[in-house]
Amino acid sequence: MVRRTGRRPGNPDTRESILAAAREAFAERGFDKTSIRAIATAAGVDPALVHHYFGTKDKLFVASMNVPFDPRELLPSILAGGAEEAGARFVRVFLGIWDSPAGAAGVALMRSAVSHDWAARLIREFIATQVLRRVTAGLGIDPDEATMRASLVASQMAGLAMARYILKFEPLASAPPETLVAAVAPTIQRYLTGDLDGVLGHA
Amino acid sequence: MVRRTGRRPGNPDTRESILAAAREAFAERGFDKTSIRAIATAAGVDPALVHHYFGTKDKLFVASMNVPFDPRELLPSILAGGAEEAGARFVRVFLGIWDSPAGAAGVALMRSAVSHDWAARLIREFIATQVLRRVTAGLGIDPDEATMRASLVASQMAGLAMARYILKFEPLASAPPETLVAAVAPTIQRYLTGDLDGVLGHA
Repeated sequence: MVRRTGRRPGNPDTRESILAAAREAFAERGFDKTSIRAIATAAGVDPALVHHYFGTKDKLFVASMNVPFDPRELLPSILAGGAEEAGARFVRVFLGIWDSPAGAAGVALMRSAVSHDWAARLIREFIATQVLRRVTAGLGIDPDEATMRASLVASQMAGLAMARYILKFEPLASAPPETLVAAVAPTIQRYLTGDLDGVLGHA
Repeated sequence: MVRRTGRRPGNPDTRESILAAAREAFAERGFDKTSIRAIATAAGVDPALVHHYFGTKDKLFVASMNVPFDPRELLPSILAGGAEEAGARFVRVFLGIWDSPAGAAGVALMRSAVSHDWAARLIREFIATQVLRRVTAGLGIDPDEATMRASLVASQMAGLAMARYILKFEPLASAPPETLVAAVAPTIQRYLTGDLDGVLGHA
């Protein structure tokens, strides 16, 4: 996986214990039900130290996942311009990451997810709370509909990654990004903001 | 994985050598470029014996994948009624398999695909030649468009399996099948038969 460069504060062993405790807690209880205090207790350190090293719970989650980018940095380019063209922007940003060297981290995450249940839970929490929830909130999507819409978006995007980077179905695997934006953006747009007759309210 | 019951002809070692040679050949060269003769040579047996044990190349491929059903048996229920409602029927049949005990074989295949490149090639060949090619041909889809349409279908269906059975995004993971048919069928229908402006011809 790609790692960020630059100075990291603190004792590497302490940092690693906190990150391991964070991963376990997020996978076990989910992001929302996990507190910095509980992670600190599990790691045997003071909560103030966790804040000092990592800042917020969001930042700790990103650090614990070892992903080479912070999803929050991508949000403005997905949200700018409002809900109407969000599908196309979402697919474009997604392919931009996966087609870059960071895509290797994506493949590694996918590999973990299918191999270990706890990794699957951790990755789902990460995608749901750090990416999709922010997108649906940023687009003003009804909170009662947001989780079903978000999970449908996740289904198409996880499958696009599977088909393009792992199974390598042609011609999809070699297609230019804008071809896939044209193909998949209407799907994502419908899942985000379209009429979903027979879907919402049933779940 | 679920196995079929019933009498299997021949020496188990010979059968297993043929199946191993078949898997290797299909992954290495693809289904279309692999002959029964080449598999027989690799397994050190007479081609007539391969025919005797397994019948056609299609049947040999199904046997070598250890899937608990023959995709050809599912085709009539997808194709019956023509192209217009094929999306809904496709999603319904897919969920019927994955929600059944056979779904465990699907999870095992997915696990292999993300862990080993050769398994990914084998599984892609299987899905492309044994399932999707038959569906697109059976629906009368233009052969020039069939592979792009099929790979888009693969992207949504692989992702639906990931989101429902592996990552378990809620409420999608617990939703009744018909809710997901309502959600995903229009996507599959568009990929199979819809206008794909800016997609076909680029690939």
